[in-house]
Amino acid sequence: MRIVITGGAGFLGSRLARRLLERNTLTDACGVEREIHQILLLDVAPPTGAIGDPRIAYQTGDLADPATIERAFAAGADSVFHMAAVVSGQAEADFDVGMRINLDATRLLLERCRKLGRAPRLVFASSLAVFGGPLPDPVPDDAPLMPQASYGTQKAIGELLVYDMTRKGFIDGRSLRLPTVTVRPGTPNRAASSFASGIVREPLAGVDADCPVAPTTRMWVSSPRTVVDNLIIGHEAPASAFTHSRSVNVPGLCVGVGEMVEALREVAGDGVAKHVHWSYDAAIDRIVSTWPAGFAPSLGHALGMRGDDDFRSIIRAYIADDMPRN
Amino acid sequence: MRIVITGGAGFLGSRLARRLLERNTLTDACGVEREIHQILLLDVAPPTGAIGDPRIAYQTGDLADPATIERAFAAGADSVFHMAAVVSGQAEADFDVGMRINLDATRLLLERCRKLGRAPRLVFASSLAVFGGPLPDPVPDDAPLMPQASYGTQKAIGELLVYDMTRKGFIDGRSLRLPTVTVRPGTPNRAASSFASGIVREPLAGVDADCPVAPTTRMWVSSPRTVVDNLIIGHEAPASAFTHSRSVNVPGLCVGVGEMVEALREVAGDGVAKHVHWSYDAAIDRIVSTWPAGFAPSLGHALGMRGDDDFRSIIRAYIADDMPRN
Repeated sequence: MRIVITGGAGFLGSRLARRLLERNTLTDACGVEREIHQILLLDVAPPTGAIGDPRIAYQTGDLADPATIERAFAAGADSVFHMAAVVSGQAEADFDVGMRINLDATRLLLERCRKLGRAPRLVFASSLAVFGGPLPDPVPDDAPLMPQASYGTQKAIGELLVYDMTRKGFIDGRSLRLPTVTVRPGTPNRAASSFASGIVREPLAGVDADCPVAPTTRMWVSSPRTVVDNLIIGHEAPASAFTHSRSVNVPGLCVGVGEMVEALREVAGDGVAKHVHWSYDAAIDRIVSTWPAGFAPSLGHALGMRGDDDFRSIIRAYIADDMPRN
Repeated sequence: MRIVITGGAGFLGSRLARRLLERNTLTDACGVEREIHQILLLDVAPPTGAIGDPRIAYQTGDLADPATIERAFAAGADSVFHMAAVVSGQAEADFDVGMRINLDATRLLLERCRKLGRAPRLVFASSLAVFGGPLPDPVPDDAPLMPQASYGTQKAIGELLVYDMTRKGFIDGRSLRLPTVTVRPGTPNRAASSFASGIVREPLAGVDADCPVAPTTRMWVSSPRTVVDNLIIGHEAPASAFTHSRSVNVPGLCVGVGEMVEALREVAGDGVAKHVHWSYDAAIDRIVSTWPAGFAPSLGHALGMRGDDDFRSIIRAYIADDMPRN
């Protein structure tokens, strides 16, 4: 079995790849569990730390360039995890770049999968940002798509394409609406939600961190560990688990940003938590405040997905898995 | 004021143009009522009967070709009615043609409007086909988009783009989800709903007509007269009438297909109605049966839109407005 992971050099893509290597098998679109022979990690930039495993291959290229996609799929693909995206803050600031990667590259990828002849199983990393506007709390699985920023719009369009092309038999797709993933290691990115990692990661490294939204702002979050498990569960779900859509609200944890800082204080002490400074940023708050924070993810739970227990365990998972050791 | 109508050589586009000529004014994106100097009717084919008015211009070309769009907008545009589409049955039978016209051409058009500098008011003719799956009856304005065929998928994507590009200030868009328009004059087309016109039009001409769905199938329909009025009302609505979306469920009439034939019998007699034959077609029924038939269109009514009173009046409107005289 050959797997293609777009955005594969990124944090979540690499982590997914390592988890797949540990498993060594995955279920194909026919429902047959097969051994993994190759995982291609396709990304715009090379990885910061390469995975030393003969089953891993790397390719660097522009995902919106048909030649890049062609090269990645020349050896076929049984499964695809489409993780690559221009993040929310950047997609809002640069409409054209967002459309090119989040829409055009997604469509190129889906069309290339269609040409494989044998419909591959495809997991599309969507986002809770497809929601917005007035919504029930918690948000039910069948809430209307009403994105209030360009990132969510592009993800919603991707979901519609994934479902229609699945219905046509071109792919066996499933769109997973991921919670905000925290704590991400490394440096801040241009996601509007980047602070949700920064306010834990930086203080733990002894560095000050600005929090651009109010302590009362609630978010729907997940640890990287849990998201990777849920991505694989979404891949393994049989086609019969879905009815009139291929979209899944992925379980997460509803937590206030103030509570996140309190959890940091409990886990790491006051000396760490005092590095968080409340510094309101209207542009970020405008995007984040349109995202719902509480979900009732029935289908996700029925498929076996789960959320994290509490934010303290998310912080402890970061310390155990990802925090740089000095 | 210069207006561009795509699909302008078609039945609905031409009719809209004639109604606009009668009015002679339209409100621009600044809310100012202005005199109409030119209406460009852009379509893939020339009109069957040209409108003899100096304010009307025609252009023929492939809408998915940037050169066609460029030429149509070279003289600017204050308002756009984007009516052109590959109809539902054809979009389902030929996925690529549907994507090319219903998605790619729509995007080209929106991008060209963005380049005008001064955001034009734009009416996108969407469809009730954006809905599908389990839905409340009647369907509320905020029902989830869950299209179950490629036509509705492409229209839903168009709506998402119209809203996001409106939010960004590129256009002043509004997406009107039109009911099935009946009675259309002329010959059958490849819309799955084509029979809804055929079962009235052909019998009135003394010709047999096959009805591919069950008499109990209900549909949400509108006469051409009423749809044209509602398109103009949608155009004239102030931007302040909208909140988290630019999509409007346009009022219509909920009617059973059996009742449509009974109405024909009442209006035109048994000798006419007996030309309708029930001849089930699974491919058409599969598409039509995914469309909801009853709506509670609150926003549409609030804007001043209305549905037809009953199907008899729709038949009488056809006889008065469109039925060929021998």
